Amino acid sequence: MNLSKIVVKNRSYRRFYQERPVLESNLLSLVDLARLSPSGRNLQPLKYCIINDAETCAQLFPLLAWAGYLKDWAGPEEGERPSAYIVMVEDTSIAAESAHDQGISAQSIMLGAVELGFGGCMIASIKRKEISELLNFSENLKPVLVLALGVPKEVVCIDPMPANGDVKYWRDEHQVHHVPKRLLSEIILKK
Amino acid sequence: MNLSKIVVKNRSYRRFYQERPVLESNLLSLVDLARLSPSGRNLQPLKYCIINDAETCAQLFPLLAWAGYLKDWAGPEEGERPSAYIVMVEDTSIAAESAHDQGISAQSIMLGAVELGFGGCMIASIKRKEISELLNFSENLKPVLVLALGVPKEVVCIDPMPANGDVKYWRDEHQVHHVPKRLLSEIILKK
Repeated sequence: MNLSKIVVKNRSYRRFYQERPVLESNLLSLVDLARLSPSGRNLQPLKYCIINDAETCAQLFPLLAWAGYLKDWAGPEEGERPSAYIVMVEDTSIAAESAHDQGISAQSIMLGAVELGFGGCMIASIKRKEISELLNFSENLKPVLVLALGVPKEVVCIDPMPANGDVKYWRDEHQVHHVPKRLLSEIILKK
Repeated sequence: MNLSKIVVKNRSYRRFYQERPVLESNLLSLVDLARLSPSGRNLQPLKYCIINDAETCAQLFPLLAWAGYLKDWAGPEEGERPSAYIVMVEDTSIAAESAHDQGISAQSIMLGAVELGFGGCMIASIKRKEISELLNFSENLKPVLVLALGVPKEVVCIDPMPANGDVKYWRDEHQVHHVPKRLLSEIILKK
């Protein structure tokens, strides 16, 4: 699969075959992709907690917000939940902020996950304090993003942006998840 | 080239074969990778200005800061400069901030560049006001990152972090660029 195919296949998936595991070796190889990705001033302040046991997954799940635009959907049901998570953590003893690093590393991880046959969702709306408590993080470790992972169980398709410019994703009657994307011509600025 | 190879090959390159162009079609295909990458709340506030003409490249070059840790080096000399740039711009009429989107999209673009035989560097230390003036951006368009691109002319290698924990990259007598990276074991948090 070339990169362009991986990027297209890397949709935000929120329903999974929960019974299909993501192995620790897979999760470590994904974090290694993040490790080898660019870091501002090479500070490398990000650390990672990998989770693929059912108990911790179940404890983490309610600390995450799912699909803000789907008002009638509280997130995946039991049986369709992620079988693994990578919690991305900023070590504030190394750097006070790491915004670019976070996105860079998250994208490396998600693209790697797609190549391995997985998929998932980057979740920034998370209960940071509760996650820190659950995972026994010390004061300097601040959860910044949670990457939910598993074998996707839903079809996500990219639609052209509607005429009214509404960016909200939505689900049709077959539970296909539709995501409107701007056209290339709309995001290229003329000099 | 699988993703892992692309990630490893995607080093921050700062010296280029300046005479070797990056075509507009290449730049457009790279922006398309960014377009199809995840965007927080699917807002898609990022826009892109592609530059590969010698005159604008020359005007943009002095508005960028190069390799902060190399105190004796002011950036690539004429003949070794990037032959193209993608200026990433936040449209503040769409979203007030887009930090994750920026890193996510920048990584998609750089990985795509490597697959096409190019390479480059994400530059966040930029003269925003002067860039806006140069490129005639309206008030709502805020330059956030500049991706310098070209055919790399330098060897960059990943070293283990030295015992003193110094993250600074450095160049040896053969102009090989060394970048210390933390070990995987150092960035994985134990639960």
